[in-house]
Amino acid sequence: MWRLFHFPLCPFSRKVRLLLSEKGVPYELQRVEPWSAGDEFYALNPAGRTPVLHDAEKNRTLCDSRAICEYFEETVEQAPMINGTAVNRAEIRRLTALFDENFYGDVTAPLMHERMKKRLFLREPPNSGILREAMKNAHAHLDYIDWLIDTRAWLAGPTKSMADLAAAAQISVADYLGGIDWAGHEQSRDWYFTFKCRPSFRPLLAEKMEGIHPPAHYAQLDVD
Amino acid sequence: MWRLFHFPLCPFSRKVRLLLSEKGVPYELQRVEPWSAGDEFYALNPAGRTPVLHDAEKNRTLCDSRAICEYFEETVEQAPMINGTAVNRAEIRRLTALFDENFYGDVTAPLMHERMKKRLFLREPPNSGILREAMKNAHAHLDYIDWLIDTRAWLAGPTKSMADLAAAAQISVADYLGGIDWAGHEQSRDWYFTFKCRPSFRPLLAEKMEGIHPPAHYAQLDVD
Repeated sequence: MWRLFHFPLCPFSRKVRLLLSEKGVPYELQRVEPWSAGDEFYALNPAGRTPVLHDAEKNRTLCDSRAICEYFEETVEQAPMINGTAVNRAEIRRLTALFDENFYGDVTAPLMHERMKKRLFLREPPNSGILREAMKNAHAHLDYIDWLIDTRAWLAGPTKSMADLAAAAQISVADYLGGIDWAGHEQSRDWYFTFKCRPSFRPLLAEKMEGIHPPAHYAQLDVD
Repeated sequence: MWRLFHFPLCPFSRKVRLLLSEKGVPYELQRVEPWSAGDEFYALNPAGRTPVLHDAEKNRTLCDSRAICEYFEETVEQAPMINGTAVNRAEIRRLTALFDENFYGDVTAPLMHERMKKRLFLREPPNSGILREAMKNAHAHLDYIDWLIDTRAWLAGPTKSMADLAAAAQISVADYLGGIDWAGHEQSRDWYFTFKCRPSFRPLLAEKMEGIHPPAHYAQLDVD
């Protein structure tokens, strides 16, 4: 069976977990903190990052969240997430990269640094200027999601895709860390709410990072 | 015809140019500096990054270097760069991400910041500590490439792939900026040299960024 090396607030591990659940691929979890991982983890992934999927019986290792998702898209027919014409697929991959790279760099990564790493092992207070900037950036990204949802059923087109999984994964971590203010973003909030209610999302919402508490609305399944 | 928005030292634009040339896809270049780009460029790519490919006649825009490369892999049969089994393809995509993200973050990005952005528009001296660290990181990455080339014909397996194009694109920018010391990396140097000699690579080596001069060996086509 596949074993997923992850940690609870890794947005890229969350994206892979959403995909595996939607596609019905069984896996077990192994927690690892990449910032204090040992040689065994680096032997599996020289990039030293989560997520890593490893199948010990088949001696098979998959690294990098996008490479992992493409692999399951190619090998498991259920719940296609990169489908349509080549142009549709390019749009799905463009938006996946936008959330994996820009949203992560602008919002998720600074929140994780200030509110997770500093609290758990740097033992420093968060920088309020950086937090304000991250939350301002989150508003700009939510504005863009609002606009996408105004013009399409799902973020990349008429069907749910990797773009939705990538966005929901990033937002879920940012929301856990108190970085998302949903006021004024009804379209984004409704789109995210339909995600939160899916069986694939429940295990993520139930998982906690010790010492860091999400806001009350984080795991709520009713729109207030 | 496709128009590629790029700047000469953008490693991701270089990767796309290598792929388009290998696949025989015609395109014209339009230079843009993303850090001072106007609304027109952001309208094409909300991520505000190069490369962007735009076909005005067909009103078609492709953004994100990996999404662009997957698009041409799907639509142009010549010179396949993501081929083989699903496992082979996962390995190609893992290494492409390793060079696009880790090599870029560890080596290319700090070199570009210290030796390009600071010289061209921040008007600050480079930070020698950051430069030393980037060059140390480059050695670690070249060690890994040496090891790959010891065990495989090309970086990801028996045939040339996107992994080779991604690595060569990053290295070419780092080499232009004086960040690559080839001493002790014969395997990497020989592998890179075969790349430099390809017709697809020549236009990149000929291109200059005003005010920044590459070292003498940068465009040389003979191993000293």
